[in-house]
Amino acid sequence: MASSLLTRQLAISLQQNLRLAAPGSRYVSKTATKTVSEFEYDAPSMKTAVPGPNSCLSPGLQNVGAIHFFCNYEESRGNYLVDVDGNRMLDVYTQISSIPIGYNHPALMKVMTNPNNVSAFVNRPALGILPPENFPDKLIESVLSIAPSGMTRVQTMACGSCSNENAFKTMFIWYRNKERGYANPSEQEVGTCMINQSPGCPDLSILSFMGAFHGRTLGCLATTHSKVIHKLDIPSFDWPIAPFPKLQYPLEEFVRENAQEEARCLEEVEDLIVKWRQKGKPVAGIVIEPIQAEGGDNHASPDFFIKLRNIARKHGCAFHVDEVQTGGGTTGKFWAHEHWGLDDPADVVSFSKKLLTGGYYHRDELQPDKPYRIFNTWMGDPSKNLFLSEVLNVIRRENLLEEVTRSGKTLLQGLYALQTQYPHILSRARGQGTFCAIDACNDATRDSIMIKARNKGLFMGSCGEKTIRFRPTLVFKEYHVHQLLNILNDVLAEHK
Amino acid sequence: MASSLLTRQLAISLQQNLRLAAPGSRYVSKTATKTVSEFEYDAPSMKTAVPGPNSCLSPGLQNVGAIHFFCNYEESRGNYLVDVDGNRMLDVYTQISSIPIGYNHPALMKVMTNPNNVSAFVNRPALGILPPENFPDKLIESVLSIAPSGMTRVQTMACGSCSNENAFKTMFIWYRNKERGYANPSEQEVGTCMINQSPGCPDLSILSFMGAFHGRTLGCLATTHSKVIHKLDIPSFDWPIAPFPKLQYPLEEFVRENAQEEARCLEEVEDLIVKWRQKGKPVAGIVIEPIQAEGGDNHASPDFFIKLRNIARKHGCAFHVDEVQTGGGTTGKFWAHEHWGLDDPADVVSFSKKLLTGGYYHRDELQPDKPYRIFNTWMGDPSKNLFLSEVLNVIRRENLLEEVTRSGKTLLQGLYALQTQYPHILSRARGQGTFCAIDACNDATRDSIMIKARNKGLFMGSCGEKTIRFRPTLVFKEYHVHQLLNILNDVLAEHK
Repeated sequence: MASSLLTRQLAISLQQNLRLAAPGSRYVSKTATKTVSEFEYDAPSMKTAVPGPNSCLSPGLQNVGAIHFFCNYEESRGNYLVDVDGNRMLDVYTQISSIPIGYNHPALMKVMTNPNNVSAFVNRPALGILPPENFPDKLIESVLSIAPSGMTRVQTMACGSCSNENAFKTMFIWYRNKERGYANPSEQEVGTCMINQSPGCPDLSILSFMGAFHGRTLGCLATTHSKVIHKLDIPSFDWPIAPFPKLQYPLEEFVRENAQEEARCLEEVEDLIVKWRQKGKPVAGIVIEPIQAEGGDNHASPDFFIKLRNIARKHGCAFHVDEVQTGGGTTGKFWAHEHWGLDDPADVVSFSKKLLTGGYYHRDELQPDKPYRIFNTWMGDPSKNLFLSEVLNVIRRENLLEEVTRSGKTLLQGLYALQTQYPHILSRARGQGTFCAIDACNDATRDSIMIKARNKGLFMGSCGEKTIRFRPTLVFKEYHVHQLLNILNDVLAEHK
Repeated sequence: MASSLLTRQLAISLQQNLRLAAPGSRYVSKTATKTVSEFEYDAPSMKTAVPGPNSCLSPGLQNVGAIHFFCNYEESRGNYLVDVDGNRMLDVYTQISSIPIGYNHPALMKVMTNPNNVSAFVNRPALGILPPENFPDKLIESVLSIAPSGMTRVQTMACGSCSNENAFKTMFIWYRNKERGYANPSEQEVGTCMINQSPGCPDLSILSFMGAFHGRTLGCLATTHSKVIHKLDIPSFDWPIAPFPKLQYPLEEFVRENAQEEARCLEEVEDLIVKWRQKGKPVAGIVIEPIQAEGGDNHASPDFFIKLRNIARKHGCAFHVDEVQTGGGTTGKFWAHEHWGLDDPADVVSFSKKLLTGGYYHRDELQPDKPYRIFNTWMGDPSKNLFLSEVLNVIRRENLLEEVTRSGKTLLQGLYALQTQYPHILSRARGQGTFCAIDACNDATRDSIMIKARNKGLFMGSCGEKTIRFRPTLVFKEYHVHQLLNILNDVLAEHK
């Protein structure tokens, strides 16, 4: 492996070879690479089709139908994922968007070898009752150091679904406390809540959007509307579902049409809030992703979100921004909703994936009135906070948000060029930072492109009905963009 | 710290001092300790009241109302938890029953320093799509090596709530597939599921028991009925709730009365299943804890559970045993439900806490028919499986289940003796293995005993309305039992 790693000096000299070319030709020579990191490989390297023979030895132990291939994580580096057949792929799916600074980053390896950290891994505490001495400091160093504006509180959780479930609960508790004027619950409430009945378990609702994905536990799933396979056969709540704007791309070219579409959706949101209040199931909170990810990378304008936030305030609903997939820097800002320029912050912002720990921020006024209302055994995992602190150090030290912005622009320009050259295959290129996507003409074509690209060393993810989503790490540089575009271009050129 | 650790030789010589005494006098001299482990302290050691001055510097960052005190996990060892004021307590609450073999166990420290393991910590995979090469082996070494009889499949998850949520989903999917004869879903089902409506999101239910605790996410919470603080203000499902038997203890003395009570509850279960089917909300599954833990350590007989399993089969409901708190060896068997002698295994067994990873086993026939029906980003954490493998090695090597049985008998005998001596304060001592409990006369007395014991170096947990629960590690030996009984005896003797 060492032989394929480049020194910084060699990297810089190779950089001189970097050239941008017109779509259809190669963007950059295959050997031209490296800018900053020294721990990475220089390019993809393929030995078999993927999944290769070693991946096809199915273990038959778990629910294995979704497995793409088995991985050699020891040999994976930076943006390159190595499989058990020795195939090395440029990974722009990154464990469903959850690897922040690449595989086996030296800064994270150091966390493991620091003897001061051993105890945090070996003794997992019940954080809600018996936090470690340094826990407040570790929170300040990690999640609190990147709190969105207006967010003063954070609650860590084990995963994205638990984060959203508990964020919903926080909004329900806040809403009911408001309704009863912060008085103690009535005897009737106390009695009925134990048997799942109203008023103790009130008929409150969360308004979500068609195409949304907020997780798959039963509460989250009631706000998820992206794919049938997630929802079928699982009991749900009668909660309101608003249309998410179906915009035309590039956004700059369809400003008027898109504004109309957004206005239509916002009107529907208000109608639903009124209708559900009349039904006796008032909307306690509105939950939305800054970019609908699983649902097909659907964007909306800052104006849409600002107006939605205002609607939430007007109707007394909490406003919950789900940044589980968009958070962590991939849009060029640490939180995608920072692009909106909200004057009044959201009430709740949830996270997971690239943050390595789940959790949610909230405003002071959403703090539950009593202990144990939001609680579980682990409430996160301090060992993940240690890794997150290091990730944030690397992001700051290496100005990775600027890098993401730069790489993202190059990526989006490349996707525009590709869809211009292959208009019968590709359309609707869109993105913010490196959080980019492009549509194929249908799902079969999309799937075929993805498999061919994988066999050439480019591993991408899908979303929506016919969308390819790009979810690279934050150490995804312009030369990685060129590798990506080269492979994609080769696949499209061969595509029948 | 080193000075307070004993060598094996010294430990053995000190053991000679161990003597059992009548209740009221000391059970064992304070210095008499150690049997096997060398990495532990010899006894509690208190410097301040708890919480001490260093614990009282509240950080004000999270929901801190539930915090007992801040801990020094680096200095904690085996059964002894050290706080930030240097107080060393015998810990029989163990992070809400989630520390299997004590703090900083050398075997777990070794996992951290083994360079082969670094990658598993640093690169958290999306297990459902891109498992590491060794994942099947690690599953076989860890969770599958202890699978309950009849359980062929396992699905790991991040925590106990996610485990139960996904276990419920597995039962719903299985039930609906049965109902539609394993045919493809209808167009109507496909269409309605995306908008949370029946038949796509069917009105199925899970039958649970009053006093149960199965987690706090919205699906789990609909089956949790232990405390108002968990439930109030959170919307829920109209699912059936059966009475859990209210038995008299010791069980051996009230066999006839208890059998009657259990028969009453089982009759109610069948009535509810019929009633909910008539309501159009058929019971897809029954979920139950082998011992209701959070709800107050409520036991039922093997006969009750065997009959309940038969009722589930008779009515076509899945039978889900929630072993999140009871699993992992603490009852003297690896799974508490192994004490029942079921001839037909359960359909689902969920776990977390002492297993260090969440998850659930299920029978082959509950395997979902398609990939991605049970899915999320992480689906567990392979680094936790590494620790679990080591925990299991230690359990086997040191015959810890036998030790638990032995310590548990001593503990329960001691609790019987205490309640005989203090009948106005204590009653209803009960337990299986070291999973023991005793009731105080009221909640204020229970809380007062717990605080006084803590200040003498014994840290216990509470559950139910007025119960003290004992949840020691699996390395909790007879000499630890004597320390516990001594302190408790001192507290009771002083109690007004």
